Amino acid sequence: MTDTPVHSGQPASPAPTAATAPSRRALIGWGGAGLALGAAAAGGAVAVARSVDDTEPAASGAGGAIAFHGIHQAGIATPVQDRLHFAAFDVKTTDRAAFVQLLKDWTEAARRMTAGRAVGEGAYGGLAEAPPDDTGEALGLTPSRLTLTIGFGPSLFEKFDLAGLRPEALVDLPKFAGDNLDRNRSGGDLCIQACADDPQIAVHAIRNLARIGFGKVVIRWSQLGFGKTSSTTPDAQTPRNLMGFKDGTRNIAGTETDRLKKFVWVEDAKDADAAWMAGGSYLVARRIRMNIETWDRTSLQEQEDIFGRDKGEGAPVGKAKERDEPFLKAMLPDAHVRLAHPDTNAGATLLRRGYSFTDGTDGLGRLDAGLFFLAYQRDVRKGFIPVQRSLAADALNEYIQHVGSAVFAIPPGVRDKDDWWGRTLFAGTPGGTNDPKEA
Amino acid sequence: MTDTPVHSGQPASPAPTAATAPSRRALIGWGGAGLALGAAAAGGAVAVARSVDDTEPAASGAGGAIAFHGIHQAGIATPVQDRLHFAAFDVKTTDRAAFVQLLKDWTEAARRMTAGRAVGEGAYGGLAEAPPDDTGEALGLTPSRLTLTIGFGPSLFEKFDLAGLRPEALVDLPKFAGDNLDRNRSGGDLCIQACADDPQIAVHAIRNLARIGFGKVVIRWSQLGFGKTSSTTPDAQTPRNLMGFKDGTRNIAGTETDRLKKFVWVEDAKDADAAWMAGGSYLVARRIRMNIETWDRTSLQEQEDIFGRDKGEGAPVGKAKERDEPFLKAMLPDAHVRLAHPDTNAGATLLRRGYSFTDGTDGLGRLDAGLFFLAYQRDVRKGFIPVQRSLAADALNEYIQHVGSAVFAIPPGVRDKDDWWGRTLFAGTPGGTNDPKEA
Ligand code: HEM
Ligand code: HEM
Repeated sequence: MTDTPVHSGQPASPAPTAATAPSRRALIGWGGAGLALGAAAAGGAVAVARSVDDTEPAASGAGGAIAFHGIHQAGIATPVQDRLHFAAFDVKTTDRAAFVQLLKDWTEAARRMTAGRAVGEGAYGGLAEAPPDDTGEALGLTPSRLTLTIGFGPSLFEKFDLAGLRPEALVDLPKFAGDNLDRNRSGGDLCIQACADDPQIAVHAIRNLARIGFGKVVIRWSQLGFGKTSSTTPDAQTPRNLMGFKDGTRNIAGTETDRLKKFVWVEDAKDADAAWMAGGSYLVARRIRMNIETWDRTSLQEQEDIFGRDKGEGAPVGKAKERDEPFLKAMLPDAHVRLAHPDTNAGATLLRRGYSFTDGTDGLGRLDAGLFFLAYQRDVRKGFIPVQRSLAADALNEYIQHVGSAVFAIPPGVRDKDDWWGRTLFAGTPGGTNDPKEA
Repeated sequence: MTDTPVHSGQPASPAPTAATAPSRRALIGWGGAGLALGAAAAGGAVAVARSVDDTEPAASGAGGAIAFHGIHQAGIATPVQDRLHFAAFDVKTTDRAAFVQLLKDWTEAARRMTAGRAVGEGAYGGLAEAPPDDTGEALGLTPSRLTLTIGFGPSLFEKFDLAGLRPEALVDLPKFAGDNLDRNRSGGDLCIQACADDPQIAVHAIRNLARIGFGKVVIRWSQLGFGKTSSTTPDAQTPRNLMGFKDGTRNIAGTETDRLKKFVWVEDAKDADAAWMAGGSYLVARRIRMNIETWDRTSLQEQEDIFGRDKGEGAPVGKAKERDEPFLKAMLPDAHVRLAHPDTNAGATLLRRGYSFTDGTDGLGRLDAGLFFLAYQRDVRKGFIPVQRSLAADALNEYIQHVGSAVFAIPPGVRDKDDWWGRTLFAGTPGGTNDPKEA
């Protein structure tokens, strides 16, 4: 399979080409078969007609495609898209070969979808008697900068007897002060983060991967994010979170290769406890509920004190501009920015990539809204954990509650068309091979 | 209050103008007050500084504003936006004057937000000691074609002793075959439909209206819609629903004034049972869960039979093009389009304006996804009810379930800057007046 549009092989021959293939509808028109080909029709003629490729990128060039292949997975340092659909899965099979096959099938589907193409033979390109390969709701839409990023949770290593390959940096998160975690929104053997500018594209991607995984994996929980709260592009307008503040001002930009190298990407030589992770990263996901009704009744002064930044411009206390360096001692001791800043945490630095969510209303008439916090880092022990420990004293805690939590090892990127998600982990295990062509 | 940007009045004088007003940050810079003005500062100087107007449209012209004033409310025949946040409220006050004041406050806030302006004095324009008038997360964003549409549920008429003014066309919906309604996702004394191309704008609007209504109303349920499934613009690309089919092909376009007049807008003379509704409409909202995992395992032929249209082009059975007239007899007797078509239902015709939703996962690993169906009509008895009765035989029912339901009277539009939502209902009641200037 190449990355340039190709036509799916069909049982019927001669295989039609893009220029000569009749569409099913056109066939009906031409043949005068009309109504006879209607509701009850299924078979040869129709099967040929369906061979028209509906898997070509609908609007190639438009709507932007992000390269799927690379040393690192896309969806981390690549520019943050507007919307998110995140899913954590539990693995139901114990058959390693079956799971590896799923990873390969997923990779192929991800390769196609991120290029704006449909899965397999598309939503109406296969046989009439079979369920379509693609669910179809993304037909006619652009790639919308879709990225798909896979991660492996701690429990996956147990399931496949790979405890020896579990990286030390992938620790189970300790219980933090104030945690009120819902088991049903926490954990997961693996995760897929789908980001796109069009939510229909992100939802479509997760759904089709879930469908391909039917019988082998099941969605444990999922989260829709309607608005990005961070940015990885330095000169973009900083988005605002649901508390009304600019969020992501002091983030790592995707262009800062030095800081990415230092704080985000696992390196072969230095993080040698898991060589298969070279080029990868670690993700912490936290569903953080905001008590927005209470927040909305808090004075402006109090709100600004809590963050240590002002609301309009987003400037740190005592400074004039959003991008001015924070002077931490000018902030109250329990200000969020003061406590989260690298200077307070022995240099700990995260790449944040979170999204706002609103999931209807709780039983008490309050919006179930907040921040779905996503942070990438090179080592969870030197990233999220110390920062979150420091935030135990955060004045913000009066208005938020962590209700979901998960941690994942993010394997390196898929190098080329023969490579697949997780190869460096699974192909190197007993019985496997490290040669991507053979594994 | 006019529709052109104005500056909020401030206690401090002389009132600064846009050209002369120093910003708080600039003040800090100029005065050299620096850190002393930091976390602890609140008072005169800062209050003056905050008078800078943050309520001007952030990017006027860009991102499109839809006119709020008109004979009809916007959000019905106006072009369908990409995203939805819908909220049903229960009214907690029995004080009619207090409720009327809320309707006026809401109208003013809606007028501002639909024009891309912040509520009141904005997110950081008021006094530091007070909670800001606007929650701030829409600062810097464009209007995004925001429309806000209010509706009154049957129960509202009881609450305010207005049973005599309840329109006959606003019937309680009967129980339909297959209904599996959740009380917590049904009903409501009133509703607000917020549609915008940017979901952050729609969520911001509902949240700020809820905030303004604090103590008088409480959100009963709410629904986020991430993708439109219908269109009211005839030449736009028809969106696809989560079953992968083009949805909204045979809808009423917003430009079809004749059909709108006949099927959507209440007319003074002819629907005389509630004169206050002239220019209004009726809304039926149904949360329809799809069993998408089962659907995705259904053959293409079966899927196309169920709708009576093909999946790729969206053409009716036996026809070549999406816009070709359906020939109903060519469809199976239980095909959705055949059963929903006006010819099957004594001409009943709806304006559909629904959205796809995905609300995470149910306890069984299945996506809680489907169609949030919204239909506008002139008379519920001649619109939704007969069509939904006809759909009792729908082959689609095997894959869907109606889990939420509500019906609302949609009052006419707000005419001008002195008018307010619901005036024709409330100003005409005993003790009220019909003069918008006085009421
Ligand atoms: C609902 C919860 C949260 C909200 C609303 C929030 C909001 C903010 C805001 C407004 C800023 C200032 C702008 C910026 O530099 O991005 C900020 C900074 C930051 N936050 Fe949070 N945050 C939340 C939770 C967290 C958590 C859980 C962590 C990590 C454990 C975290 C880590 C950081 C870091 C590292 C910074 C940058 C500090 C600096 O270098 O100046 N935040 N946050
Ligand atoms: C999940 C549930 C539903 C799905 C997936 C769905 C989908 C569709 C599709 C794909 C079409 C054909 C394209 C078009 O003309 O729009 C259609 C047509 C239609 N549907 Fe539905 N629909 C659903 C529920 C309903 C309900 C509850 C009603 C009203 C009670 C309804 C009323 C109609 C009408 C009036 C038409 C146009 C028929 C015609 O004039 O040809 N639908 N629907």
